[in-house]
Amino acid sequence: MKGFSTTMFGLGLSALAMLTLSHAARAQAPAPAPLQVPARSLPVPTTVSPQMQKIMGAPIGPNWNVVPKSGAEWKASADAGAARAIQNLPALRERLHVRAEASTMDGGKVHIITPDNIPPENRARVLIHIHGGCYVLNPGEAGTTEAIFMAGFGRFKVISVDYRMPPESFFPAALDDVLTVWKAALKNTSPKNMAILGSSAGGALTLALVHRAKQLGLPLPAAIASGTPMADLTKTGDSFHTNAMVDNILVSSEGRCDAAAGYYANGHDLRDPLLSPVYGDMHGFPPTILTTGTRDLLLSNTVRVHRKLREAGVEAALQVFEGQAHGAYMRDDTAPESKAAFAEISEFFNRHLGK
Amino acid sequence: MKGFSTTMFGLGLSALAMLTLSHAARAQAPAPAPLQVPARSLPVPTTVSPQMQKIMGAPIGPNWNVVPKSGAEWKASADAGAARAIQNLPALRERLHVRAEASTMDGGKVHIITPDNIPPENRARVLIHIHGGCYVLNPGEAGTTEAIFMAGFGRFKVISVDYRMPPESFFPAALDDVLTVWKAALKNTSPKNMAILGSSAGGALTLALVHRAKQLGLPLPAAIASGTPMADLTKTGDSFHTNAMVDNILVSSEGRCDAAAGYYANGHDLRDPLLSPVYGDMHGFPPTILTTGTRDLLLSNTVRVHRKLREAGVEAALQVFEGQAHGAYMRDDTAPESKAAFAEISEFFNRHLGK
Repeated sequence: MKGFSTTMFGLGLSALAMLTLSHAARAQAPAPAPLQVPARSLPVPTTVSPQMQKIMGAPIGPNWNVVPKSGAEWKASADAGAARAIQNLPALRERLHVRAEASTMDGGKVHIITPDNIPPENRARVLIHIHGGCYVLNPGEAGTTEAIFMAGFGRFKVISVDYRMPPESFFPAALDDVLTVWKAALKNTSPKNMAILGSSAGGALTLALVHRAKQLGLPLPAAIASGTPMADLTKTGDSFHTNAMVDNILVSSEGRCDAAAGYYANGHDLRDPLLSPVYGDMHGFPPTILTTGTRDLLLSNTVRVHRKLREAGVEAALQVFEGQAHGAYMRDDTAPESKAAFAEISEFFNRHLGK
Repeated sequence: MKGFSTTMFGLGLSALAMLTLSHAARAQAPAPAPLQVPARSLPVPTTVSPQMQKIMGAPIGPNWNVVPKSGAEWKASADAGAARAIQNLPALRERLHVRAEASTMDGGKVHIITPDNIPPENRARVLIHIHGGCYVLNPGEAGTTEAIFMAGFGRFKVISVDYRMPPESFFPAALDDVLTVWKAALKNTSPKNMAILGSSAGGALTLALVHRAKQLGLPLPAAIASGTPMADLTKTGDSFHTNAMVDNILVSSEGRCDAAAGYYANGHDLRDPLLSPVYGDMHGFPPTILTTGTRDLLLSNTVRVHRKLREAGVEAALQVFEGQAHGAYMRDDTAPESKAAFAEISEFFNRHLGK
């Protein structure tokens, strides 16, 4: 800092000027104080679609920080959520013109989502989807929502991995199952024709799978899409503070979702790149598209991964949607922002995958 | 919204579920209420460089919302800021190995920033820089800081436009001056070998220049870089709310900078795309790279422009830096984030400009 900062906008940051008058003064300066931000009332913006306004206007749920106290309670909560979720899937699949089939691949449970009409350029392509849900939620068919969006909007065949979760299985079970499915897929399809995608915990698992495949010397996919990844489970990153209580979906890192991820980690070092992939070496990663929103609690996670990829020389695209909280782009298939998000991912995959 | 949103993360957004039970209920639902966000204390993050921590840790200046009451007061404020700024420029130029020369091009005032060593691939290339400062600040040499960063980090010859400003000249004088320089530059250099860049007001003017050149049928640059653009002067956009008092540089749209821009607009319709370029048709825009930060008051401006460009089929890259407030990437040339931002812009230009 050389002082011109004080006048870049003429806004009179005199305290900043004093802090930065000289190198000597800088060395002696105390640690900067936290920024005190007053309480605010955030209106629902006019710059998003009516569907997104509905999502943004929903009040924070009363249970965001109610943490189950036992494996049985976690399971009951996950099962109840899944039962509600799957009620909506038949109509969603119908609207997006896809069908679903449960299957296994070398013992790994999957749901295969197939569009009614696959365009010629996608017929030799396969996408692997890894669902979100804080490593504990969305068992079974409930984990296929994003896969249905991807298959429907992109007209790709999508294999969604129904990985093992607590309370039965803990780290690295989820990653092991994704790896099993990846290796099985490699038997039938060239990695050049495949991509991997997922959001939230699935976005982290997408990145972790690449770390793991690199460790094992396995082929990597031609591209990946990581949406609002839980890329740092150590609660490190600025948007954990700036977007706390602003994100009406995740709400805060002191809530249920981080507790669930910690439950899955089961005492393992949270800084392990297989749990917090932002801490891994990203050289050699395939082209990556990242998706987040301006109100996302994981905005910093997402942009930190983007920067780290770019610093490693990886082609990496970032899309940030106006106003959206965590994963809001996969909540309403009728929202134009949802279609736009998956259209961008499709275009990115189309550019990088073989045929 | 079809209801699966309530269980995507199992976080119990029961009110959201009720809002979205049916189309009938949705149609009757009242407008969503604003989100109430409690007061918070934002620590300086550990995920940015020490230099950026200093910038982020600076308290909000006492004058951010002190608005000059006359042209003379605006001018005195701008001149005082400029006098402070230019003190730092000789050392900055020395560190970045560039020299500066004041000149004119067809009557338009410019400062030409030339690196000591220009690599062969950049020798036939020229960049046009448009400085920021809320359309009122940074007259004369004071407006060259970002041009020095660009010339120094990218090793390009950069022509920085010293456009007319209030209190002498109002909209569209600044844009007219940029246009004059653009037309003059076209006499000597192919547009295929040129790019235009700027941040804040300069980021908006970069976009507005393209709108204007399209209107006039003039050649467009091969690429543009728009940093944290004042792309919407109507105070529309979610981050005007979410990042109010979080951005320690601009602070709020109720502050001095918006007042300055309004002063420049001089009663003209603020929704005119030549003042608020987000409202213009972006089809046919050149490849564009956009830069912002997670604490930027203009984060929404930036991502809205990005989405609009993408929807118009334009190649557009977005870089969002962890924790940064408005324009923080051009405050300290020793911060690795500053170098990274201009390295990305340079790489983008290198990819799109002829030689």
